[in-house]
Amino acid sequence: MTTSSFNSVGVFANQSTPLIHESLQRVVTLLNARGVRVMVEETAAKGLKLAAETATRTDILPAVELVIAIGGDGSMLGAARDVAPHGLPLVGVNRGRLGFLADISPEQLEGQLSKVLDGHGQIEEHFLLEGVISGGKAQPATALNEITVHSAAMPSMIEFELYIDGGFVYHQASDGLIVSSPTGSTAYALSAGGPIMPPNLDAISLVPMFPHSLSSRPLVVPGDAELTITLGEKAGTEAKVSFDSQLEFSVQPGESVVVRKAEHRLKLLHPPGQSFYGVCRSKLGWASRQTS
Amino acid sequence: MTTSSFNSVGVFANQSTPLIHESLQRVVTLLNARGVRVMVEETAAKGLKLAAETATRTDILPAVELVIAIGGDGSMLGAARDVAPHGLPLVGVNRGRLGFLADISPEQLEGQLSKVLDGHGQIEEHFLLEGVISGGKAQPATALNEITVHSAAMPSMIEFELYIDGGFVYHQASDGLIVSSPTGSTAYALSAGGPIMPPNLDAISLVPMFPHSLSSRPLVVPGDAELTITLGEKAGTEAKVSFDSQLEFSVQPGESVVVRKAEHRLKLLHPPGQSFYGVCRSKLGWASRQTS
Amino acid sequence: MTTSSFNSVGVFANQSTPLIHESLQRVVTLLNARGVRVMVEETAAKGLKLAAETATRTDILPAVELVIAIGGDGSMLGAARDVAPHGLPLVGVNRGRLGFLADISPEQLEGQLSKVLDGHGQIEEHFLLEGVISGGKAQPATALNEITVHSAAMPSMIEFELYIDGGFVYHQASDGLIVSSPTGSTAYALSAGGPIMPPNLDAISLVPMFPHSLSSRPLVVPGDAELTITLGEKAGTEAKVSFDSQLEFSVQPGESVVVRKAEHRLKLLHPPGQSFYGVCRSKLGWASRQTS
Amino acid sequence: MTTSSFNSVGVFANQSTPLIHESLQRVVTLLNARGVRVMVEETAAKGLKLAAETATRTDILPAVELVIAIGGDGSMLGAARDVAPHGLPLVGVNRGRLGFLADISPEQLEGQLSKVLDGHGQIEEHFLLEGVISGGKAQPATALNEITVHSAAMPSMIEFELYIDGGFVYHQASDGLIVSSPTGSTAYALSAGGPIMPPNLDAISLVPMFPHSLSSRPLVVPGDAELTITLGEKAGTEAKVSFDSQLEFSVQPGESVVVRKAEHRLKLLHPPGQSFYGVCRSKLGWASRQTS
Repeated sequence: MTTSSFNSVGVFANQSTPLIHESLQRVVTLLNARGVRVMVEETAAKGLKLAAETATRTDILPAVELVIAIGGDGSMLGAARDVAPHGLPLVGVNRGRLGFLADISPEQLEGQLSKVLDGHGQIEEHFLLEGVISGGKAQPATALNEITVHSAAMPSMIEFELYIDGGFVYHQASDGLIVSSPTGSTAYALSAGGPIMPPNLDAISLVPMFPHSLSSRPLVVPGDAELTITLGEKAGTEAKVSFDSQLEFSVQPGESVVVRKAEHRLKLLHPPGQSFYGVCRSKLGWASRQTS
Repeated sequence: MTTSSFNSVGVFANQSTPLIHESLQRVVTLLNARGVRVMVEETAAKGLKLAAETATRTDILPAVELVIAIGGDGSMLGAARDVAPHGLPLVGVNRGRLGFLADISPEQLEGQLSKVLDGHGQIEEHFLLEGVISGGKAQPATALNEITVHSAAMPSMIEFELYIDGGFVYHQASDGLIVSSPTGSTAYALSAGGPIMPPNLDAISLVPMFPHSLSSRPLVVPGDAELTITLGEKAGTEAKVSFDSQLEFSVQPGESVVVRKAEHRLKLLHPPGQSFYGVCRSKLGWASRQTS
Repeated sequence: MTTSSFNSVGVFANQSTPLIHESLQRVVTLLNARGVRVMVEETAAKGLKLAAETATRTDILPAVELVIAIGGDGSMLGAARDVAPHGLPLVGVNRGRLGFLADISPEQLEGQLSKVLDGHGQIEEHFLLEGVISGGKAQPATALNEITVHSAAMPSMIEFELYIDGGFVYHQASDGLIVSSPTGSTAYALSAGGPIMPPNLDAISLVPMFPHSLSSRPLVVPGDAELTITLGEKAGTEAKVSFDSQLEFSVQPGESVVVRKAEHRLKLLHPPGQSFYGVCRSKLGWASRQTS
Repeated sequence: MTTSSFNSVGVFANQSTPLIHESLQRVVTLLNARGVRVMVEETAAKGLKLAAETATRTDILPAVELVIAIGGDGSMLGAARDVAPHGLPLVGVNRGRLGFLADISPEQLEGQLSKVLDGHGQIEEHFLLEGVISGGKAQPATALNEITVHSAAMPSMIEFELYIDGGFVYHQASDGLIVSSPTGSTAYALSAGGPIMPPNLDAISLVPMFPHSLSSRPLVVPGDAELTITLGEKAGTEAKVSFDSQLEFSVQPGESVVVRKAEHRLKLLHPPGQSFYGVCRSKLGWASRQTS
């Protein structure tokens, strides 16, 4: 899917380093030169002389047709959760190291970004996960990579039961469980032994964290499955549910965390020529094509 | 999905043991008592006095509405590959040990089978994989569990390239690659470190066998992906492609094996109350529900 | 190695449940019947009518020739750390579930314990690990199972360098590193993918916790190796060092944790007929000898 | 341990490529320039004009004080098995890619080799494994990396029992078992999920190959353990025992393979500055020291 050009662009950055500032200046210069309306996140613009409007994320999102996020994969995760409900495409400028989400590097910034702004980018849809604690004590939150239910005092064990679409699956004693989207399959879930899944797979992986039993293995289930993780009743087993390792809520004995696919998808916009497996080869060290 | 009753039933068995014979007699007695037409595989009936017609699989398949296979998971794999193209439901009677495919045990034979014949069974669809060697030197063959491309002289390494839907993924040096359906995810692929996938997941896993590189990990891709495994050109690297570890063909340097989902699915018929995760708990030793 | 009989016995228990109390009563009765001097840990005896002296661990240890600990593997770990420096044999009575350390079960208590008291037990030596934070801000502490250096806010990454006997090994980004004795190889290190090591192996395993790099693998080094784990300098990366998941100290950026074999070994006393691999078969579900 | 200089040197090479020939010429030139007696393996010298005596390995070994092997890790394995019983030091010149065993590269050949010949090399001792099939139908053979007992028709399962020092350990159903020395821990055993062990560890690892049971894990035992692998009696389960994947013998149902440390060790001679963990960093992709 290619994309048409954009008349108004929001620019997000949540880190304040010279490298980020330089990229920010260059992005604003490029957008101004193209006559595009630019709105920069005000916390990012603070202390800089930028030829651009500044506003909060909340004000920017309804007013623009595209969001550019500058930073590492961590910044992209936050931007993704904010942008997805608005249905806007998101493009990422990394800090110098190629990421799965931010794939325009500073040295190619103007060239790659121009192609994207000209409508030559590729939209890749990524679903988000949504998690809620039973009993309604907190609003549902979303994650692009993974929702993790884990002991509040790791390393230390919790006990819980897993249900899929209401059916009992297993009782598990472990440090916790990683519920990962395909996007998260190359992040924390991979470190825990989970399989790699491309963004176009409609599936969720469940990867145990230091399971007590040797028979616990990663499980991959359909993307529309509803997962319920019910903590054991044993007093003293406090747990936490964390979203992309960025938001965290407490879960008490006997409470459940329900995870399912979120309503809105992220529209990640890549410069032409990028591919998931190409990033795997470069980031994970997969061997490239044999030369003779 | 429930099923209506059946007027004609084929009975397959490809092992000749007293236990199989006893189950076979009981199945025939039950079917005769219900007035159903019974056709028994002639090799299975050999030397037995059975009150039933006997015929070859080829003759039985177009003439019946249901197939009952008696034996272990190995027998079920062969029956599955034969039955699937005919669109008939298949029900499995195991040899005494619960299997993922054969889930009626001898001690419950009459009770469970009667429920299934009364139309109280559940159809669970399983897709098969189809593999073909480039160049047309062999007909495509199918597998219910997995298609494996491996060194002809294991333990020993082969080198190959993987392409998904025509796009290059990686070059790999390993003893081989297991391409597994969800059905096969609890078989050989699991031994090699692959994830568990329920039958209703539309996905294929690719699990490396003793990979030379530490960065090789299991990969799960959409069920409609076309996978091409191209052997390196280096002389002397003979490989084999095997289907459910039951059929095997030689693959030469430079040749490719193309794997995709087969056209026909297996309609596996379970007695009421059976569930994939229930069999996981019983066969894999997953912990069951906590008792307080 | 068999053992001679004992004239004075200390009894430890650090949990207060009816099951523990019952075992405690039976142990005291048995010891009194044999005319052995019995000293019970006073916190364990609280509220019970026991025909025995009570005292603190500190007072009991120099006065007895054998220690009996009642409880699960957790209680045994604490008892082991306390008992080892005194060179006394330790025997464990479990709470009902066979453990690697506590291998006399309540139903066989009198019979098995009598054999041990008669001198028919087997001494199995287990080395402990000792860890200290560079800079001397805390006394060295010991662990029977493992010393873990991990992020203070798991799940979350720390960066550190590993040195063995002063030589640089690797830089690692992970949630932490488990340094395990053979005794700990069937505990937390096993959950993290480490190998199983029998008590008579003179080796230490280093098992990464959710490593960021796919090339990180468990490492097994000689038992007399000195391991130095030096935290990265990056501000904000607070870590913890934990001993058997029971004691925990904070480690700051740039600080090192030095781990080596402790001076004193634990003399674990088993009833006759117990073997490490026998417990593996029973606790880990390893298949036993083929029948027919 | 440093080494004194050498008056007579054997040169082994078992491959015939232009690269090997070039290294061979340069080695001979260097040795002649130093006035050292040179004996080249005659199969390696065939067709080349070399200013050196040629002879068979059998004749060279008793006549020299040092062996230089030119080739990859495969050539080194063969040379190691031949050289070890003679107690001679062995130094390896690789084909261009750094190996764990052959660590002088063509581009540094003269410089590194001169240091070694001057006595500035470091001897690193590596023990070999010895395996014999019960019943004496074959002589014991040795392996530097690993002895593997595996199905004769992999991928396919065998059943066997493992005994350590005569005590029963487990019954296992798998494609086979890799018994690895520390030297082999970075080779095939690593691909199968075994731990990494430095050469100075006195231990043997046992790594299952595609085990049928999820509870099968790598096991590390003392270096002086005697391992007995007894094949199941079931007819038709033919297995093979292979030594460094270079020698192979057939094992029949009911027969046992006994593996223990071999009597003679390999004295591998490294140029100064080489270290096991340095090679790990370079060959396995372990991260090197942080640059602030």
